[in-house]
Amino acid sequence: MTELASLFETYKTAVFQKDVEAFTSIYDENVLVFDMWMQWTYEGLPAWTAMAKEWFASLGTNCDAVHFDDIHVQAAGDLATATATVKFTAVSDTGKELRFLQNRLTWIAQKKGNAWKIIHQHTSTPIDVETMKAVLHK
Amino acid sequence: MTELASLFETYKTAVFQKDVEAFTSIYDENVLVFDMWMQWTYEGLPAWTAMAKEWFASLGTNCDAVHFDDIHVQAAGDLATATATVKFTAVSDTGKELRFLQNRLTWIAQKKGNAWKIIHQHTSTPIDVETMKAVLHK
Repeated sequence: MTELASLFETYKTAVFQKDVEAFTSIYDENVLVFDMWMQWTYEGLPAWTAMAKEWFASLGTNCDAVHFDDIHVQAAGDLATATATVKFTAVSDTGKELRFLQNRLTWIAQKKGNAWKIIHQHTSTPIDVETMKAVLHK
Repeated sequence: MTELASLFETYKTAVFQKDVEAFTSIYDENVLVFDMWMQWTYEGLPAWTAMAKEWFASLGTNCDAVHFDDIHVQAAGDLATATATVKFTAVSDTGKELRFLQNRLTWIAQKKGNAWKIIHQHTSTPIDVETMKAVLHK
């Protein structure tokens, strides 16, 4: 956990504050993202930064509160991995919790100098085989 | 790639031959799977073995031909990771290709003795935000 603790903290704070620069600071310039929504892959930091800008803009006056659960971290040398459940709760500007959804998260990170950078992120929910629709809650 | 090459080969052959024992041999006894279908997690080899039995039985006289693309491997010490695209093609007993779907795959593996074992697998497809349905092809 210690190795990647700062990534979880930065992710949480950056998303809540809709801070694109802080958010993208935890990702490697060659990051490969398998995101839950729409695109098969995001390749490289510019593509991922564009996603973050769109995401934060789409929230309007709301924001997304992030909560991580079930965190498991593995590390060897300059390579580390994490798995977790992430809960995103949409919160209005008056602090009202509007709705939430959950993702399964996998991170692969590499130590570059003193900082861990995410080189791969995979988020998803399972698919219901009858409806082919996403199951949004654990 | 070299570190995990045998995992890709065994996965492919075991699925095509519907060989539960060979299939499960590449997974750690405490494997955590975030699978594309139905369940939020599979925890431990017995749960994952039961999934494999159901999967292979559901194929009837067909079988699933597996093809990996876009493989990227990272390794440090006894930890290794892989990302890839997996294509599953349903093939009839007369060799006819019936249909296919694609997954995004992430593996985390640990070296135990001489063998790499998958301690985490994450497969998914992205979700279309309008329909909330799975996008099954790259």
